[in-house]
Amino acid sequence: MEIGLIGLGKMGLNLTLNLLDHQHRVIGFDKNIASTESVTSSDFHLAASVTDLVESLPVPRKIWLMVPAGEITTAVIDELTPLLDAGDILIDGGNSNYKDTLKHADKLKENGIYFFDCGTSGGVDGARSGACTMIGGDRAKFKEIEQLFKDVSVDNGYLYTGKCGSGHFLKMVHNGMEYGMMQAIGEGFDILEKSEFDYDYEQVARVFNNGSVIRSWLMELVEAAFAKDANLDDIRGVMNSSGEGKWTVETALDLQAAAPVIALSLMMRYRSQEDDTFAGKVVAALRNEFGGHDVVKK
Amino acid sequence: MEIGLIGLGKMGLNLTLNLLDHQHRVIGFDKNIASTESVTSSDFHLAASVTDLVESLPVPRKIWLMVPAGEITTAVIDELTPLLDAGDILIDGGNSNYKDTLKHADKLKENGIYFFDCGTSGGVDGARSGACTMIGGDRAKFKEIEQLFKDVSVDNGYLYTGKCGSGHFLKMVHNGMEYGMMQAIGEGFDILEKSEFDYDYEQVARVFNNGSVIRSWLMELVEAAFAKDANLDDIRGVMNSSGEGKWTVETALDLQAAAPVIALSLMMRYRSQEDDTFAGKVVAALRNEFGGHDVVKK
Repeated sequence: MEIGLIGLGKMGLNLTLNLLDHQHRVIGFDKNIASTESVTSSDFHLAASVTDLVESLPVPRKIWLMVPAGEITTAVIDELTPLLDAGDILIDGGNSNYKDTLKHADKLKENGIYFFDCGTSGGVDGARSGACTMIGGDRAKFKEIEQLFKDVSVDNGYLYTGKCGSGHFLKMVHNGMEYGMMQAIGEGFDILEKSEFDYDYEQVARVFNNGSVIRSWLMELVEAAFAKDANLDDIRGVMNSSGEGKWTVETALDLQAAAPVIALSLMMRYRSQEDDTFAGKVVAALRNEFGGHDVVKK
Repeated sequence: MEIGLIGLGKMGLNLTLNLLDHQHRVIGFDKNIASTESVTSSDFHLAASVTDLVESLPVPRKIWLMVPAGEITTAVIDELTPLLDAGDILIDGGNSNYKDTLKHADKLKENGIYFFDCGTSGGVDGARSGACTMIGGDRAKFKEIEQLFKDVSVDNGYLYTGKCGSGHFLKMVHNGMEYGMMQAIGEGFDILEKSEFDYDYEQVARVFNNGSVIRSWLMELVEAAFAKDANLDDIRGVMNSSGEGKWTVETALDLQAAAPVIALSLMMRYRSQEDDTFAGKVVAALRNEFGGHDVVKK
């Protein structure tokens, strides 16, 4: 197929290479990228603008967005909408909040444009060599583009998830689970580190990955990290986040779903971003007030 | 090698078959088992008593325990100790609390007996076809029995973890991580179930297992469970536990390690075992007292 791909950052560029590997033609665009030397295929063409990209594609157009979620995605969709024709297909492969996706879907439907939300997991390597994709949108129309997802995903690594929004929703919840699993793994290693025993953490992760109940890709990544830095001496335990964990917790609250482990995983990330806490000061002050317990002075 | 194996329950019997596959001779004993029809190998002999087992083994003896942790393990070790000679080797392959293991090690050391604690993961199938083993004890002596662990484990699936206690400690923490990972997975599916979307959970687990960041053996087990019962209609969400999660949390408290996700995973299991809670009654009563809010009457 011939695909327009907007957003040639780490994910978009690797997805482009992946599509080219599968004999698709790609017309790419990224407003911050003037040349793409790493893409040597003659099936790739770099467009000069969104308008150029739209005009270069055969109708009905198929355009895949791999741009940052939020305002940028909305701005790109707003720019594209008047340029597209009824019957064109737009895929949002970014990490959009499913509530934004539902709004985008409504607006695009008014214009007769088929919109698909594609949650993408597996990181940069996945985008390059085989991702995991979860796609929401019109079921019948999906059949026309199913091969694309089959091609860029690992075997059995794509799923049509239902109506619009269900792909991004599922990817969001996937990330929520990921937060909890990662925090559990981190806490376990923390207990090992504080123990009386002297473990080789790379070897621990290695043995966990061979035959144990908790063998997992995350544990393989832990093993790789300890292989580079045996005790992670070179990094601080500051755990940033990029939104999907927070959305999962917000969604759990909206749905009145009890998800304390995912919620606490998120809050432990927030805690890790602070060297000191106001909550801690308040509790220390209270202990001092009622019991005369020492406080640690600044 | 010639091994005495005490405890021929699900784990011990499968470990026996696994050892026999690897050309070891096994003398088994289980006080509740009078015959073992499923073991047809001529390299297996069922002893009539612990004394019979001990007397049947060449010196230095190698005896592997696969009996329930706690009082039973301690009782078997107490029974064995006077029957063994200095230089004999005893392996506790059960899920003993590492604090018990440290006590057992001290006592056995006084008698000149080499004691190894072997944490075993991978379930019954692992015991049969390739487990994950983590072994603490004397480093030099370990070399003499290393082949045993290599044989019963999957490739790269065994680790000498250091001094006595370190094997069971590591297995305990492994289980703590497992609690947190499982709870995170459970909460994620709960959010999906309460959402406006209509997911096929077996397919969700399947796509998560192919290329996603959270691909894992636990997710494969979830996939298998949904394959049998698409919405798990036939089971209740009562989450029992068998001790190692609790020990992990107790250990975290002793070490003053912040492990809120593992702790909460354990407490959510306790919550799941109650149809109603006294905490809930107290909170409902308080809301009624100060705000006149309705309570749900029994």
